[in-house]
Amino acid sequence: MGIRTAVVGASGYAGGELLRLLAGHPDLDLVLATAHSQAGRPVAGVHPHLAGLDLVLGATDPAALAETDLVFLALPHGESAAIAAQLPDTVKIVDLGADFRLIDPAQWGRYYGGEHAGTWTYGLPELPGQRLRVAASDRVAATGCYAVATILALAPLVAAGLIEAEDVVVVAASGTSGAGKAPKAHLLGAEVMGDLTPYKVGAHQHVAEIKQATGAASISFTPVLAPMPRGILATVTGRPANADITANVVRAVLADAYADSPFVHVLAEGQWPHTAATFGSNSAHLQTAVDIDSGRVIVVSAIDNLGKGAAGQAVQCANLMLGLPETTGLPVHGVR
Amino acid sequence: MGIRTAVVGASGYAGGELLRLLAGHPDLDLVLATAHSQAGRPVAGVHPHLAGLDLVLGATDPAALAETDLVFLALPHGESAAIAAQLPDTVKIVDLGADFRLIDPAQWGRYYGGEHAGTWTYGLPELPGQRLRVAASDRVAATGCYAVATILALAPLVAAGLIEAEDVVVVAASGTSGAGKAPKAHLLGAEVMGDLTPYKVGAHQHVAEIKQATGAASISFTPVLAPMPRGILATVTGRPANADITANVVRAVLADAYADSPFVHVLAEGQWPHTAATFGSNSAHLQTAVDIDSGRVIVVSAIDNLGKGAAGQAVQCANLMLGLPETTGLPVHGVR
Amino acid sequence: MGIRTAVVGASGYAGGELLRLLAGHPDLDLVLATAHSQAGRPVAGVHPHLAGLDLVLGATDPAALAETDLVFLALPHGESAAIAAQLPDTVKIVDLGADFRLIDPAQWGRYYGGEHAGTWTYGLPELPGQRLRVAASDRVAATGCYAVATILALAPLVAAGLIEAEDVVVVAASGTSGAGKAPKAHLLGAEVMGDLTPYKVGAHQHVAEIKQATGAASISFTPVLAPMPRGILATVTGRPANADITANVVRAVLADAYADSPFVHVLAEGQWPHTAATFGSNSAHLQTAVDIDSGRVIVVSAIDNLGKGAAGQAVQCANLMLGLPETTGLPVHGVR
Amino acid sequence: MGIRTAVVGASGYAGGELLRLLAGHPDLDLVLATAHSQAGRPVAGVHPHLAGLDLVLGATDPAALAETDLVFLALPHGESAAIAAQLPDTVKIVDLGADFRLIDPAQWGRYYGGEHAGTWTYGLPELPGQRLRVAASDRVAATGCYAVATILALAPLVAAGLIEAEDVVVVAASGTSGAGKAPKAHLLGAEVMGDLTPYKVGAHQHVAEIKQATGAASISFTPVLAPMPRGILATVTGRPANADITANVVRAVLADAYADSPFVHVLAEGQWPHTAATFGSNSAHLQTAVDIDSGRVIVVSAIDNLGKGAAGQAVQCANLMLGLPETTGLPVHGVR
Repeated sequence: MGIRTAVVGASGYAGGELLRLLAGHPDLDLVLATAHSQAGRPVAGVHPHLAGLDLVLGATDPAALAETDLVFLALPHGESAAIAAQLPDTVKIVDLGADFRLIDPAQWGRYYGGEHAGTWTYGLPELPGQRLRVAASDRVAATGCYAVATILALAPLVAAGLIEAEDVVVVAASGTSGAGKAPKAHLLGAEVMGDLTPYKVGAHQHVAEIKQATGAASISFTPVLAPMPRGILATVTGRPANADITANVVRAVLADAYADSPFVHVLAEGQWPHTAATFGSNSAHLQTAVDIDSGRVIVVSAIDNLGKGAAGQAVQCANLMLGLPETTGLPVHGVR
Repeated sequence: MGIRTAVVGASGYAGGELLRLLAGHPDLDLVLATAHSQAGRPVAGVHPHLAGLDLVLGATDPAALAETDLVFLALPHGESAAIAAQLPDTVKIVDLGADFRLIDPAQWGRYYGGEHAGTWTYGLPELPGQRLRVAASDRVAATGCYAVATILALAPLVAAGLIEAEDVVVVAASGTSGAGKAPKAHLLGAEVMGDLTPYKVGAHQHVAEIKQATGAASISFTPVLAPMPRGILATVTGRPANADITANVVRAVLADAYADSPFVHVLAEGQWPHTAATFGSNSAHLQTAVDIDSGRVIVVSAIDNLGKGAAGQAVQCANLMLGLPETTGLPVHGVR
Repeated sequence: MGIRTAVVGASGYAGGELLRLLAGHPDLDLVLATAHSQAGRPVAGVHPHLAGLDLVLGATDPAALAETDLVFLALPHGESAAIAAQLPDTVKIVDLGADFRLIDPAQWGRYYGGEHAGTWTYGLPELPGQRLRVAASDRVAATGCYAVATILALAPLVAAGLIEAEDVVVVAASGTSGAGKAPKAHLLGAEVMGDLTPYKVGAHQHVAEIKQATGAASISFTPVLAPMPRGILATVTGRPANADITANVVRAVLADAYADSPFVHVLAEGQWPHTAATFGSNSAHLQTAVDIDSGRVIVVSAIDNLGKGAAGQAVQCANLMLGLPETTGLPVHGVR
Repeated sequence: MGIRTAVVGASGYAGGELLRLLAGHPDLDLVLATAHSQAGRPVAGVHPHLAGLDLVLGATDPAALAETDLVFLALPHGESAAIAAQLPDTVKIVDLGADFRLIDPAQWGRYYGGEHAGTWTYGLPELPGQRLRVAASDRVAATGCYAVATILALAPLVAAGLIEAEDVVVVAASGTSGAGKAPKAHLLGAEVMGDLTPYKVGAHQHVAEIKQATGAASISFTPVLAPMPRGILATVTGRPANADITANVVRAVLADAYADSPFVHVLAEGQWPHTAATFGSNSAHLQTAVDIDSGRVIVVSAIDNLGKGAAGQAVQCANLMLGLPETTGLPVHGVR
C-alpha cells in the first residue's frame, strides 16, 4: 500500500494541480482532498480535467488529516499554521503557502502582516545543500511561484560573484492562474485576454524570500499579468561584477549549478525559454545574455507557475522527504 | 529491453506529441525520430518542451525503420503509402495520416484525390468490436481529429436508432495546431488570436470516414478555426427518431456504449465538455441535450486534437496491437 | 448643441462600448452615465480604455434621465421596464435588454419568466421595412447579440424560400464579454483561455426573437463560449428547398437583401468571415456554401457582440430615430 | 478636395492600420496603396477588417507616388531610402521604418548594418520642442514601437534629473503583430498562444533611438513576445538620483511633461496601464512607483504597437506637418 496523502485546499488551482499529479503518482495514494465552500462536491465537478477521478471534496478536518502520512497545504497565506499545529509529527507536511518560508519575522511583517508563524525548511531542492535538508525534514515550506523563477536564475550569479548583490532588477510576467480562482472582475477572461498589466509594482511579497535564498542585497521587482492561463517568465538582470563576463561564462556557471538537478534545463546557446514549453511540467528553462549596451547580465527563466512554481515543486519536496527518487510522478516535459 | 519504436514526421505537431508520449511510455523505447527539412536538428531545438530529450532528428530511411518493432507515421496525407510499402511485416505500423482510413476508393478520390493506397484497420478502439480488430492488426490507420470527436458523439446515436441517419449537422471548432506547423500567413498568432473563422465549409475530408464509421447517411460539416493552440469541440446534432427521446435516454446510451472505454467520459448531468479539460490527455468528454425548440438531439464532444485526435489515439492503438494495457503511458486527465 | 444623451448601466461591457461610441459621435452629447454599485467612480477608473473621458458614473435617477433627449438602457434583463415607465415621451429610448423585444408573452414566459413588459419596435434596421419603422419610433428594443448574428444570416434565406422553415440548425460561438462583467469563477481568464465550452445547449433565449424576426419554424441553437474577449461567429444551416440551390444563388440573395445596408458585407467568393475583422465595428460579415454531402445551405456570419450585437446596433437605431444618417459615429471597419 | 495620400507597404500590419485610420480621416484622402507580392489584390482580401473599402493594392511606382501630397512608407528597414530619393520635395513623407531615425551613422551600423541613409526629423511630437519641429518638416521618421513606449516613460525622468542616466533597465513585451506578417513558424498561433518568450535579449535595435531621444547613457533592454495580437507594455526602471524621490514626485513630472499632449495619459494613482486599454488607439498610458526594496524608480507605459507605436504616430506626425489639429482622425480611446 502506498503513502496515504491528503490535499488541503483542493478546489483552487494549485490544489487541482496537486490532485492531477497525485493521480499519476505511483507511490502517493490520494486518500483525502478537502476544501472550504466547495466541500461535498465531486472533484470532477470542480476540476473538469479530472473527469474519471472518483473522489468527493471533504471538509478540512484535522482528525482525518492526522490519519494520513503526508499532507499538502494549498491554502491562502496565513491559514496554514492553524492546521499544521493540529497535526502530529507522524504526518509529513508540505505547505504551498508563504506562512513558513521566511526566517526574519520583520520581513514577514513587512510583506504579509500579522503574526509570524515560524520557519520551515525552504522547499527549493536546487539550492546548494538544500536537497539534503529537504530530505531530512518533516515540515517543508515550498517556494513562491515568482520566487522559484527568480531564484533559479539569480542564485548562481550571486554565489559565483558574477554580479553585484546590489540593484538586481527583475520583471516577471505570470499567467492568470497565479492570481487564484476567487472570482474577481479584473481577472475575467474578457479583461485579461489580449492584455498585459502590471500589479503590486515595486512591492511584491516574494522579494523577501528571493533575497533570503539568493543573498541579493536589493531587488527591484515588477510583476505583470499576462494573457495566458499558466506560466511565468522572469527576466532577471544584475550589474556585472567585472567587464569580462560573457554569456558563455554565465551559461557555464548556471549549467554547473544545476548539473545534478533533473528539472532545471540550461538551454543550448541561441535557444530562449518559452513558458509554454514548461506547461504542465516541473521543469525550469534558463538562458542568458550580456546586454551589449549596458553590460548587464541577463538571465531569463521560464516555469509553469502551477508546476515548478507550486504543485510540482511540492511533490518534488515530498518525494525527497519520503526517500523516493526526486522525479517520481513528475513530468519533465511540458505539454505543448 | 522495450519495443523499438520510431516516429516518422517527428517535427510536426502530431509528431512532437508522439515524442512526448513515448518519452513517458514504460514499454515503448523511442529509438528513432525522423523528419524532412529538420533532419539533423536536436529534438529539443525543434520542440522546446522536450528539453532534456537527448535525440537528434534523422532523415527518413526505410532501412533504419525496418530495424524497429513499431513505426508511427505522422506525415502529410498521401506520403504514408510509399514508406509503408518499404517496411517488412515484422514492423507494426500506425499511420496518423488519412491514406489508409477509407474503404471506398471513390470517397478517397472525392476528398483527397490521387490513387487510393488501400485500407487498414480503422484505429478507433471505442467503436463496437474495433478494440479486438485493432489488437489483431499489424497495420492500423488512426482516425482524423475531427472524425474522432464526431464519431464518438454520433456512432451510438445512429446505432441505437435514436436519430435519423439522414441530415446530421455538425459544427466543430479546432485549435490551430490542427492546421499544422508549416508557416502560413493566415495561421500567424496575430491573425488567429481573438478570432474565429470557418474554413472548408461544407466540404471537409473527414466526412467520409465519419460516415463510414457511424453509418450516418448524410452530414453537413462545418469546421471552425478557434483561438487556442489545441482542442476540438464538436457539436453534433441529429433529428430525433421519435418524440420521446430525452437527454437522459441519450446519456444512458452513450454511457453504455463507452462503459468499457477508459478514455471516454460521459459527464454528469449539468456538466458540459471543455476542450481545456482534455488538453494533453487522451480523453474525450461527452454531454447531451435535446433542443427544446426543434427536438434535435445534440451531443457535444471535446478532445485534444493532438491527443485523442492524433498522437494519443495512435499510441492507444499501438498498445492494443502489442498486447499492452490500452492505457499504458497515456494521460487520462488533462492539464488545466 | 447636440442631443443630450444618457447611458444607464454604463459600468458593464455594453455600457462601456456605448460610452466609447458616444465619445466619438458628432451629434450625440454624452451628458449622463449611470450605474448601480459603481456609481460615484470616474468612468476612466471603471473603463481604463476611456482614459481622458472626464465623467463620473452617477446613480440611476429617473428625474435626471427625464431631462435628456435620448436614453440607452444597458441593464440586465427585466430591469428596463421599471425605468422606462418613469421617462416622459419626450425622451427617446433604446433598450439593449430583452424586455421589449418579444411580441408573444408566452415566448417571454418560456425563456425569461416573470411578467411580459410589452413590445417595442424591434431594432434591427436591416430587416425588410424595419429601417423606416425604427426611424418612426421613440421606443426601440435592440436585438440580442446571438440574434442579430443569426437573423442576418437566416432571414433572407427564409424570405426567399431557399430553405425550409423547419429544422434550422445554428451553432454560434461568442467571446466572453457576452457573458457580462459580473465576476464568476467559470469566466475567469484562467478558465476561458484555451477553452471552448457550450452552454444553455438547446435552450437559449434568443431563439424566440430569431423565430419572430425570420419566420423560421424551428431552430436548434447551440451557443459556445470562445476564448476571445469579443465577437460572435454563427454557423446557420437550413435544409435546401430544392436541389438546385447553389452558393452563388444564396450569395446573390444575401447581397440583394443587404444592398442598402452599409454595415452588412456579403464577402467575395472564397473569403470567409472572421470575427476579428469586425472587432470594434458595427459591421456584419456573411458568406455562404452548400454542403457537398448533405446539400444543406450554410451561411456563416461574424459580428462584434458588443458592436452590431449591442452598442453599435443601439446607436444605429438612435441615429435613425433622430433622423441622422444611419452610419453617424459608427465604425464600419474593425480594428485588427 | 482632401490631401492625396498614399501608403507604401500597405499589405503589412502597420500598412493595414494606416489604411484603417485613413479611411476614417476627414482630411486625408487615400488615393493609392501599394504592395510588393500582394499587388493586384483587393485591400479587403488582404485585410478582411477593411471590408467595404473599395481599393486594389497597386505596385509601388515612384511616378504615381510623385502625384500625391503625402506618402507613408511602411516598409522593412532599409527599403525606404531608395523610394524617398525618387519623390519630389512637393510630396511630404512619413517613414515608419528605421532608415532615417538615427543621427549617428555608427549607431546605425551597429544595429542595422549597411549604409546610413541619413537623418530626418524624429517623429515623436511629445518630446520637448519636437511638435514644432515635426510641424516644420517635410520628411519625418516616425519612432520605433518599443522606442515610443520606452521614451515616453523615460525622457521626463532623465530630463528632470530624477534618475541617473546610467543603468536604465527596460523589459518590454509586445503583441505578435510587432513581428510582422511574413509567415514564420515561431510566430504561428499554435506557438505564440499561451506563451511568453524573450528575443534579441540585450541587443535590440531600438536602444539606439531611445538613447538618442532621452539622453540615457546606458540601457539594458529585453524584449518579450506576448500572447496577444497587439500592444506593448514597457517596464522602465532607473536608479533614483536621490533618496527623496517618491511616486508622487515622478507622477507630477510626467503629468507636467505631457500636459499638452492629448494622447499621453498619466493615470490616476492606483491605476496601472493595460495594453488592452490602448488597443486601436493612438494613446499611451503611464503610471509610476518607487520600488520599496531597491528604491528604483519604475514607470510602466502601455501603447498599441500599431497605433502610437506605428500607424497612429505616423498620422499624428502627418497632421502636424499639414497644419491640421494633431488629433484629427485619431482615436484617443482604445477598443476594449
